[in-house]
Amino acid sequence: MSARVLIVDDLFPNVKLLETKLALEYFDTLAAMNGPDAIAICEKGLCDIVLLDVMMPGMDGFEVCRTLKNNPLTAHLPVVMVTALDQPSDRLKGLDAGADDFLTKPVDDTALFSRVRSLVRLKAVTDELRSRALASRDFGMGDPLALATAETGLNANILLVEDRRGAAERMAAALTQQHTVTIEADPNRAILTAAEGGFDLVLVSLDLENFDGLRLCSQLRSLDRTRTVPLIMLAEAHDRARVARGLDFGVHDYLMRPVDRNELVARVRTQIRRKRFSEVLRGAVQASMEAAVTDGLTGLHNRRYLDNHLGSMFSDARLSDRPVAGLLLDIDRFKSINDTWGHEAGDEVLRTFAERVRLHTRTIDIVARYGGEEVVIILPDAGLGEAQVIAERIRERIEATPFSIQRASRTIPVTVSIGVAVRQATDTGPADMLKRADVALYRAKDSGRNRVEAQAA
Amino acid sequence: MSARVLIVDDLFPNVKLLETKLALEYFDTLAAMNGPDAIAICEKGLCDIVLLDVMMPGMDGFEVCRTLKNNPLTAHLPVVMVTALDQPSDRLKGLDAGADDFLTKPVDDTALFSRVRSLVRLKAVTDELRSRALASRDFGMGDPLALATAETGLNANILLVEDRRGAAERMAAALTQQHTVTIEADPNRAILTAAEGGFDLVLVSLDLENFDGLRLCSQLRSLDRTRTVPLIMLAEAHDRARVARGLDFGVHDYLMRPVDRNELVARVRTQIRRKRFSEVLRGAVQASMEAAVTDGLTGLHNRRYLDNHLGSMFSDARLSDRPVAGLLLDIDRFKSINDTWGHEAGDEVLRTFAERVRLHTRTIDIVARYGGEEVVIILPDAGLGEAQVIAERIRERIEATPFSIQRASRTIPVTVSIGVAVRQATDTGPADMLKRADVALYRAKDSGRNRVEAQAA
Ligand SMILES: [Mg+2]
Ligand SMILES: [Mg+2]
Repeated sequence: MSARVLIVDDLFPNVKLLETKLALEYFDTLAAMNGPDAIAICEKGLCDIVLLDVMMPGMDGFEVCRTLKNNPLTAHLPVVMVTALDQPSDRLKGLDAGADDFLTKPVDDTALFSRVRSLVRLKAVTDELRSRALASRDFGMGDPLALATAETGLNANILLVEDRRGAAERMAAALTQQHTVTIEADPNRAILTAAEGGFDLVLVSLDLENFDGLRLCSQLRSLDRTRTVPLIMLAEAHDRARVARGLDFGVHDYLMRPVDRNELVARVRTQIRRKRFSEVLRGAVQASMEAAVTDGLTGLHNRRYLDNHLGSMFSDARLSDRPVAGLLLDIDRFKSINDTWGHEAGDEVLRTFAERVRLHTRTIDIVARYGGEEVVIILPDAGLGEAQVIAERIRERIEATPFSIQRASRTIPVTVSIGVAVRQATDTGPADMLKRADVALYRAKDSGRNRVEAQAA
Repeated sequence: MSARVLIVDDLFPNVKLLETKLALEYFDTLAAMNGPDAIAICEKGLCDIVLLDVMMPGMDGFEVCRTLKNNPLTAHLPVVMVTALDQPSDRLKGLDAGADDFLTKPVDDTALFSRVRSLVRLKAVTDELRSRALASRDFGMGDPLALATAETGLNANILLVEDRRGAAERMAAALTQQHTVTIEADPNRAILTAAEGGFDLVLVSLDLENFDGLRLCSQLRSLDRTRTVPLIMLAEAHDRARVARGLDFGVHDYLMRPVDRNELVARVRTQIRRKRFSEVLRGAVQASMEAAVTDGLTGLHNRRYLDNHLGSMFSDARLSDRPVAGLLLDIDRFKSINDTWGHEAGDEVLRTFAERVRLHTRTIDIVARYGGEEVVIILPDAGLGEAQVIAERIRERIEATPFSIQRASRTIPVTVSIGVAVRQATDTGPADMLKRADVALYRAKDSGRNRVEAQAA
């Protein structure tokens, strides 16, 4: 994937060298010679990935990385730290600051390009989700980016596929302080275990006996149920070619043996954070769409949902000769509840009413708030008799137990009137059926309320 | 990207050969020996890409491809036709059936793998969008997949970057029957032209004088404003290595010179369809989220939107010492409009009322339907005096022109009462301000309606 690479280094020759190399690989480059400039470019959304020098006057690379990773505007940008230092402690400091990787100068070009490509490809998949989540924020549906950025990457469920018992136990010991680890020595079982789900990350040894760990990685990356789970390869130092291959087909990260336990912990946490970042965004978009068809007060579906679904129920030929019943429910004397006890008590009654109605309907029924104190229930495959029985049960359940109001400090009696109708062959649309339910409801009100009435036969 | 590749061929040895080759490249494979089986596997969502033989007994490859591309459940799957035929007409028939590419046996492995990888990567970026769109369909918000699949790929705006005049004119001539073509001979200007936007596709010559066409492609793929625009490379037959490189960094397709005009037309259409497919899905997700904060009847924002935005306006420290005014509008005697002219007339009045209110507010104001016949307007940075002026103007505009009802067959007079309040330093939240607006509104009603009243100083 082509991408805009931001090179951050206080030395001009270093910038030039990387620019030249990356341009030959068809990347677009930008440069910043200090931390604050780099952060400003990232905040403006001008780059896709950051190559970050550690030693810079003023703000050093670690601080730049931490700042980027804790800012909702920039947390999604992959950061690769590039430095002359080769002390494990510096490497670790970079990873702890949230860096996605840490390469040491002189940089091995193949390693650099393969890393940049893999990180940029993974980012591209999340970019669309991020745009949608940004839109949901603009619509005032909370700030999912801030929420996603706050994710710590702890308490994850990790699967470790490793058949060397000693190595497996050492790694598990390092991880169990923050996570739950399941060790699986049999790679054939690992794919099933992983597919059964619940894992936030899978570590895969590339040195399994009689099994190609890369094959397992590729299967996990292509199975529907595991393709979004982050994968980390464990490889011997001489195995760089296979590591590059894994990165190329979508493995998220790798660790070279002997595995440094702190590096293990840091890389695992980075991947978990990345995964949960996407999940939070996905959840926000989903919640935002769900809100469009949900009544805010009662949590029931709203009229928009009812109209859409009823419409297709009546227009879809495959559904059009199956029975459908509609119940129209109206809380009796609701206005006087509001007038006597106040609007908040009225809201409490509506919420309790909705809960009880939901308790006595099935998952396939549609329950929607129709207007102020009116609720519609659509019962697929129900005839008039069955619908009347259900309506009567709901009427009883409402009357049987008084409603708590004013935070349970008081209870009041509530009753409901219900009109019942079913689809007829002559109906031209759902409005015809609802009209008959409305007429029946009117009769129920007229004959004293707290009653169920059905359409005339 | 690892992926599940479906191999469709009626000859077992052909299936085996491809399976072995693909497995070595770490793809997962599935096989089908006839068209109907292949379609069933695709409909179940079990694969990411289809390698499709042409000559099969019963349903041939062309028909399978057409079926897949016209089915909303499978239209997003890339299809590469693989066949022994090498007649341009067959190649064309495959592309016309909607195939993303057409390779001839014996298949060049490098070409095959690079094509499969590139198509799978492009698909991965759209998969997330497709899942969200599917969710919006489940919420009853229409069927975006059906809509996206129906897209024909015609009437596009195409940029052709080619400095060989004859070639450029021939290609433009082939495309202008279905599309609008802009020829740009100067690659340096091309990037600006493309960024200024409005293009549905860019064709780039890799044989420009003094300019690397691949560089242009990589820039177009990384610029924010052009990265979703499909790119097709035009290359000489000997230039396969650069073509593979382009595919690797995200170019969508290519044509070998001499360019066959029918193949050009077919490949262009496929890319346009693919782009619009994504756009329809994106639009559906966006619309679904927008619906969550929109009142269905009037198109104004709803109470959820108002509450979210007012909440942050009062809690965000950066905004908390700036003036804010709130107007509470209530249509006078709305119940009697409903009772006299019917609910539909009431809805017409609400819609017209909303339109007029919108006309007299600014983009930065929040206008939301608050309840039945109540509308709230929030004016950022407005003091009490300014808010009263705006309220008075709206009151006049409502009174001045009678409202059309019953499809413009009749007009009735409508008036509005308005309560005005502004934020005070002692307010603990937006509810305090709205409460004062409500008290003022009550006074307006009480003193005869069709009036503006402001909170006590
Ligand atoms: Mg330095
Ligand atoms: Mg055949």
